Amino acid sequence: MTKINKNYLELQGSYLFSTIAKKVKAFTEANPEKKIIRLGIGDVTRPLTPTIISSLHSAVDEMANKETFRGYAPDLGYEFLRSAIAANDYKMRGCDIEADEIFVSDGAKCDSGNIQEIFGEDNVIAVCDPVYPVYVDSNVMAGRSGKAIEGTGKYSNIIYMPCTKENGFAPECPTEVPDIIYLCFPNNPTGATITKTELQKWVDYANEHDSVIIYDAAYEAYIKDEDVPHSIYECDNAKTCAIELRSFSKNAGFTGVRLGFTVIPKELVRDGVSLHTLWARRHSTKYNGAPYIIQRAGEAVYSDAGKEEIKGLVGYYMTNASYILKGLKDAGYEVYGGVNAPYIWLKTPNNMTSWEFFDHLLETANVVGTPGAGFGPNGEGYFRLTAFGDYNDTVEAISRIQKM
Amino acid sequence: MTKINKNYLELQGSYLFSTIAKKVKAFTEANPEKKIIRLGIGDVTRPLTPTIISSLHSAVDEMANKETFRGYAPDLGYEFLRSAIAANDYKMRGCDIEADEIFVSDGAKCDSGNIQEIFGEDNVIAVCDPVYPVYVDSNVMAGRSGKAIEGTGKYSNIIYMPCTKENGFAPECPTEVPDIIYLCFPNNPTGATITKTELQKWVDYANEHDSVIIYDAAYEAYIKDEDVPHSIYECDNAKTCAIELRSFSKNAGFTGVRLGFTVIPKELVRDGVSLHTLWARRHSTKYNGAPYIIQRAGEAVYSDAGKEEIKGLVGYYMTNASYILKGLKDAGYEVYGGVNAPYIWLKTPNNMTSWEFFDHLLETANVVGTPGAGFGPNGEGYFRLTAFGDYNDTVEAISRIQKM
Repeated sequence: MTKINKNYLELQGSYLFSTIAKKVKAFTEANPEKKIIRLGIGDVTRPLTPTIISSLHSAVDEMANKETFRGYAPDLGYEFLRSAIAANDYKMRGCDIEADEIFVSDGAKCDSGNIQEIFGEDNVIAVCDPVYPVYVDSNVMAGRSGKAIEGTGKYSNIIYMPCTKENGFAPECPTEVPDIIYLCFPNNPTGATITKTELQKWVDYANEHDSVIIYDAAYEAYIKDEDVPHSIYECDNAKTCAIELRSFSKNAGFTGVRLGFTVIPKELVRDGVSLHTLWARRHSTKYNGAPYIIQRAGEAVYSDAGKEEIKGLVGYYMTNASYILKGLKDAGYEVYGGVNAPYIWLKTPNNMTSWEFFDHLLETANVVGTPGAGFGPNGEGYFRLTAFGDYNDTVEAISRIQKM
Repeated sequence: MTKINKNYLELQGSYLFSTIAKKVKAFTEANPEKKIIRLGIGDVTRPLTPTIISSLHSAVDEMANKETFRGYAPDLGYEFLRSAIAANDYKMRGCDIEADEIFVSDGAKCDSGNIQEIFGEDNVIAVCDPVYPVYVDSNVMAGRSGKAIEGTGKYSNIIYMPCTKENGFAPECPTEVPDIIYLCFPNNPTGATITKTELQKWVDYANEHDSVIIYDAAYEAYIKDEDVPHSIYECDNAKTCAIELRSFSKNAGFTGVRLGFTVIPKELVRDGVSLHTLWARRHSTKYNGAPYIIQRAGEAVYSDAGKEEIKGLVGYYMTNASYILKGLKDAGYEVYGGVNAPYIWLKTPNNMTSWEFFDHLLETANVVGTPGAGFGPNGEGYFRLTAFGDYNDTVEAISRIQKM
């Protein structure tokens, strides 16, 4: 008699963005004449840039000819892409990461959900609160979370690291030492960043306690400030304690194209076993490589023309971020983030709960945002807006919010 | 202190195809002048067909324009593709499968590795012996296999169902009842098929014992014989016991494009929980959808022109299969498969082991095949050749083998 994975029954409610989608669908059906502006889910809206489009077309043409057709990709990614990543994202920033320490994948969401599989069930994980839900949910599904604590949105066996306005939404190293620490900077959802000095403390802490940091740097392209690190490998000795996750979704607009990568340095060993080897085995058994045409598009991101175009994309969204930040401040809102990150984190007015403000904003301004409470208990009373909208829509949304 | 997933330490050797790749690399480096012919890994060699190429180009163009750009895909796949699948692969064969019972993914290998996650660790799985290694390895990694039994290539907690020439490489229902049964027909690696009457016995057995069948139908496009079912849902009551995995890799040549799907009927319930719901949750948490442009290519497979072209591709490979089958028979080999499947399963001559024959074939004929032993103990003494090569290369390979 088949038994299900009962850990799934511990999952709290349905996945945040599915819930939002359902609420918006219901509102749209009831109010077909209203023009909804979506500043909720972190999905990009600008088209792919000319260099990317051109690389996709030429890779498609290669697939049409017997001589240049490509079947199964190498398990861990094509050499041309891994080398471009190592050179541009790491060597150029002084990080000693080799091409064969890079694992190409179909995106940082998948990697952040799958990476926990190489660790034992008996590890205690620590997450920021608020947090990107995938880190928690994937660990719940794997039986690592303990039981849900009713009414708290928390699990008994997870260490929550509060991110509050008092600590600038960057947590302190916890006194109870976790085995695996999820960090995401620039942060989703708060838009907070961490300085290199502060991140070095985490690296030292992890090395001291033989913990592993899973560092989600999906938003590194939005960093402007000099003292904010783009990679955790800018810190000393990070290669013995850190895994880094990266994405092409938010810099090059690949949310619907799907490409990302994970870095696991060969020096990263636990229980006498190389985590690089474990992830390679996981990748070659349960994954079959990113599509060739899409890996070519990823390579184009690192061309001179590609880099210029990506700067333009990031600049476009950051203009939105600045506009939202200023517009909300002018309207009297308490706002955070939006400087080195495409997310604006605002305090809900009049002590509304996050979901109350979600409904209020949807109904009054027809603007969709993301309730902070969906990211964890310390997100309650906060709300996330994203800079990924169309500029004119963003201006219109802020104008509507200002009139509320 | 971080603990690794110790189940990985139970994995036996490295992944079959990686080992082959290493051996071939070593041979090529030592003998750069020899022309290797690869009839080993089941990778296609024909280019994508015109209709697919055209759909890829036009989808790429859509991504270049703000109005038609697509970001995140719906979690479970675009409606246009799911509807095309439901209509063409199921309704047209009289199978009552709805679009919302179809989960689009990046391929059957990933799905076959991931599907076990929705089941509890305490299930006993049954696999054919020989078997596609992913079914076993993904269960080893999840802690469901028990210990490796030294020198046997088996695990203590897995039920192996022998597929031998005596039973036509189609196993009998085991007396010890498994919770989860992996079946693959047309079979990889043996090329064997199962009749609808025989498959109905499995469905009845699974329903009687509340087991679940994971039915891998990745090679259904190669079926010629009328009494061989293309889908397990052609059997009565399969919707209460079967999950089906499908691929675009071997029909449309998408091994490097990556597209597949899993069918989980809504009626499929275990422990009072819908497996459809569990997989939907897994998909939406740990996966982020197949690329838009590739889902459009999948849709094109079901157009009239696409269907004709796919028939041509399958026909090309099956011409190879017939050639290999006849050529080996003429040379005195004992051969199986190759009629409703792109795989030819041959008995190694002179009581050679599978790996001995692999080395012999590589060194003498410079032909790469796959050792049967890599698929399980009952594969020992057998060898797999595939029909996915170039026709002229295939003819040349058979000529070289005949001269051995």
